[in-house]
Amino acid sequence: MKPVALDAMGGDRAPEETVAGALLAAREGVPVVLVGDEARLKEELARQGGELPVVPAADAIGMHDAATDVRRRKDASINVAVRLVKEGEAEAAVSMGHSGATMAAALFLLGRIRGIERPAILAEIPADAPAGRLFLIDAGANADVRPGHLLTFARMGVAYARRLWNLEDPRVGLLSIGEEPTKGNQLVLAAHPLLKRVPGFLGNVEGNDLFAGKADVVVTDGFTGNVVLKLAEGEARTIFRWVKAALSSSLRGRIGGLLVRDALKTLAARMDPAEYGAMPLLGVRGAVFIGHGASDRRAVKNALLRAHRLAGSGLLDRLAHLN
Amino acid sequence: MKPVALDAMGGDRAPEETVAGALLAAREGVPVVLVGDEARLKEELARQGGELPVVPAADAIGMHDAATDVRRRKDASINVAVRLVKEGEAEAAVSMGHSGATMAAALFLLGRIRGIERPAILAEIPADAPAGRLFLIDAGANADVRPGHLLTFARMGVAYARRLWNLEDPRVGLLSIGEEPTKGNQLVLAAHPLLKRVPGFLGNVEGNDLFAGKADVVVTDGFTGNVVLKLAEGEARTIFRWVKAALSSSLRGRIGGLLVRDALKTLAARMDPAEYGAMPLLGVRGAVFIGHGASDRRAVKNALLRAHRLAGSGLLDRLAHLN
Repeated sequence: MKPVALDAMGGDRAPEETVAGALLAAREGVPVVLVGDEARLKEELARQGGELPVVPAADAIGMHDAATDVRRRKDASINVAVRLVKEGEAEAAVSMGHSGATMAAALFLLGRIRGIERPAILAEIPADAPAGRLFLIDAGANADVRPGHLLTFARMGVAYARRLWNLEDPRVGLLSIGEEPTKGNQLVLAAHPLLKRVPGFLGNVEGNDLFAGKADVVVTDGFTGNVVLKLAEGEARTIFRWVKAALSSSLRGRIGGLLVRDALKTLAARMDPAEYGAMPLLGVRGAVFIGHGASDRRAVKNALLRAHRLAGSGLLDRLAHLN
Repeated sequence: MKPVALDAMGGDRAPEETVAGALLAAREGVPVVLVGDEARLKEELARQGGELPVVPAADAIGMHDAATDVRRRKDASINVAVRLVKEGEAEAAVSMGHSGATMAAALFLLGRIRGIERPAILAEIPADAPAGRLFLIDAGANADVRPGHLLTFARMGVAYARRLWNLEDPRVGLLSIGEEPTKGNQLVLAAHPLLKRVPGFLGNVEGNDLFAGKADVVVTDGFTGNVVLKLAEGEARTIFRWVKAALSSSLRGRIGGLLVRDALKTLAARMDPAEYGAMPLLGVRGAVFIGHGASDRRAVKNALLRAHRLAGSGLLDRLAHLN
């Protein structure tokens, strides 16, 4: 079985949390290779008392480097990880490092799937929908798009919902500012008639329809999608902080808080982005996942599990025959 | 003292909730006139045991009518309410009805303030900021804008934060998908250098910065802003529903839930859009407020209080001298 290649140098808490997350995933049966500074990674593995194969990479792209650095820094860990996918040595690549650099490495080394002009990031957001989540595409790869790109995003989202979540007929919504086809910005107004070609298209959805689960796949440009994703995560964090503060503001609340702590913790964990781990970049010729820079070991583990699952799902073959 | 004119026929729950809200506001010292079907409003007033002046309007724009109907249906309640503002008979107009029609009536009858090409809707969203909220502009008036419009939105937002909330030096953020000035869509990239002219501009903010209170005034186009506003409201509603469900899923949780109920209710009320009541359309020559169609009496009351406060704040004079 081919392993998942983890850019072990990527992310604010690498390599400690990346190595710890990789060991957790390996214990759950996912084969992993670590990519990065060989000496440091072996030292970290020894410190944590675990064993994993290491593929050396002499360089690493930092969070403040330019995404385009991947083109000349061939030995950067993200390049080495993606190259393993390209060469058939790994089934997927995962990085918690510089998102732009990961996208650039994927586009440059793997290239786009024929027929997909713009690869897009798919994010899972908790929602009152059949899968317990919605699939938001694009969550940030393309800040400016044309109407036709949204059609491709919709098709990729549907394929993902089917292959990864067994939703046979996912409901597809176009994110807008009113239900009627006449509501929206120029991009959405032009995309709406195109999306009618997608089975399951139910028309426009609005911001308040997302958590309510009105659609399984929500299609939008990468600017709006990235704002939505970060707002959704940030609002959940703030509300849980406010709930905590509200409960600790009275004796009654503190006593009740002890009793409800476990229930709230379970809920907070469901809302935690670490639950998802990382987001796939759909439309490139290989499975590439982009995670939060702040990822902890749980996020890294879940990202690796998810990458392994996607690689074995047949989704990439499906994306090659979208039209 | 001039009254606030309430389009008493506007909204899903008119005239019962509009009349009830108007009576609540009047009890708190806000002079109100009801605009609409005279017989029905007098009957409703009698039923609720209250008294308020009524200005008759023979027609009313329904939620499924076209916004442009305001141009020919002169006797529609929203037109009569806005005309009272234009003629100096009312200090502000408030409607929970068709948002597009309210905007159209305001633009058509009052016109734009000189120098403000695009009036914008300002929404207040709860946040960990000094005022306990942030000011989002534009929350939905303009789906497509040019960079210069965002500069005007920023200036209107700053004036609002100063006059209505006494924030002397509001921090202004441009909503984008990365902190760096090089991150964003074409609109944001072009607007960023313009916004440097605004005192208090701290650069780009991201979706997760909103509830965290990184900025007091958050500037965006009306498409993104409307998605953000509705997502923020919808997510809060869903999370509180999930919290309730989580607490009722075990005996321990149910007992704890009884103890924390009041604390959670206070918090949920803070997140409830009815707390804000309605949003001002800034940039037209008069105070006009647009509320949720689903508004209850509490929302109507708060909208009237807010309209009264804005009308007395000197904000409109300030907006006439922005540059």
